[in-house]
Amino acid sequence: MTEPLPEDLWPDVKPDAARRLMAAAIDSFASRGYHATTTRDIANAAGMSPAALYVHFPSKAAVLSAISRSGHEQALEMVRDVVVNTPEPVEAIRLVTQKFVAWHAKRHRVARVVQYQLQALPEEDYRVVADLRRRTEQLVRDVISDGVRAGVFAVPDVRTAARAVLSLGIDVARWYTDGGKPAPVALGRQYADLVMSMLGAKIR
Amino acid sequence: MTEPLPEDLWPDVKPDAARRLMAAAIDSFASRGYHATTTRDIANAAGMSPAALYVHFPSKAAVLSAISRSGHEQALEMVRDVVVNTPEPVEAIRLVTQKFVAWHAKRHRVARVVQYQLQALPEEDYRVVADLRRRTEQLVRDVISDGVRAGVFAVPDVRTAARAVLSLGIDVARWYTDGGKPAPVALGRQYADLVMSMLGAKIR
Repeated sequence: MTEPLPEDLWPDVKPDAARRLMAAAIDSFASRGYHATTTRDIANAAGMSPAALYVHFPSKAAVLSAISRSGHEQALEMVRDVVVNTPEPVEAIRLVTQKFVAWHAKRHRVARVVQYQLQALPEEDYRVVADLRRRTEQLVRDVISDGVRAGVFAVPDVRTAARAVLSLGIDVARWYTDGGKPAPVALGRQYADLVMSMLGAKIR
Repeated sequence: MTEPLPEDLWPDVKPDAARRLMAAAIDSFASRGYHATTTRDIANAAGMSPAALYVHFPSKAAVLSAISRSGHEQALEMVRDVVVNTPEPVEAIRLVTQKFVAWHAKRHRVARVVQYQLQALPEEDYRVVADLRRRTEQLVRDVISDGVRAGVFAVPDVRTAARAVLSLGIDVARWYTDGGKPAPVALGRQYADLVMSMLGAKIR
């Protein structure tokens, strides 16, 4: 059950003990639920003392916030990176969908905490995360709008279309399991094809 | 915050006290999380004593199971009803999407418990619910297959396409809020249009 700790999961989080605590928290939240998890549960799962946890995080909510902020920052960064480097709207949405879906499949346990525990965030962290979400959604919406104007997408409502694209990716975290088929990257490609049809993409 | 108790929510559940307890449980799970909710919390929220709760449900898990089974039975019933009465695959998937999306928007609080608390179900109830889910998904898959054979749908992978249709509906429960726009029925129509494009539907 323990989430492996690849370097790319929380590249900005230092030291390693903090990353280990975040990974342990994901396991504890998954098995007990956020509300019933204690800081002691998290520390135990990371092989540390509760006192050692407090060196890195003032509270259980702070661990949740770190996981949630990091996940949302990575999502925004990924979308922005694609958009900046892919001027053609059809290709941009294809890449965003592929990567967004693959991430939610590969990191489904992390993603469940990131996507489904928003209401447990402290108010200030919630505002930060809500802002990251808005910016991510706005980027996707802008690309779809550009595509509609350029005549390469045809959708009745850009806002709903953008929401549907992200929704398809997020919901993968709900049902995907370890060793699931198709594998994350292949699933990303299948969903990208579906999204291309959904947006009426003109593929040259 | 209290979920209204319209007649159509749990039409089969009798007496009214049991339905009131299920509604109270949904509020309690939403605010505290399932694991941190006690039977006392649920009874209090329903304006009853814990002893009165035990008349209707042997445990907190039994309340969750009743909510989850009822929600999944309704979903299967709705899909089956559409499929039986709508021989044309394109029209059938359009109607299923409309109704499935509208339900997840209108009943977003109930739907969150139904869709996101599966791992907390007792094993036997989980098996029942998993079977209901499989049958619902199979019906959608069969209709899409029929449509592909009839040349009115064009999808690269029927299983992934069926999953995406249901995924779009389920994820609405995650983000929809009371008084959300578009209203549930209008959102159902918008999503049905997107699904028609996604499945490459030939509309006569």
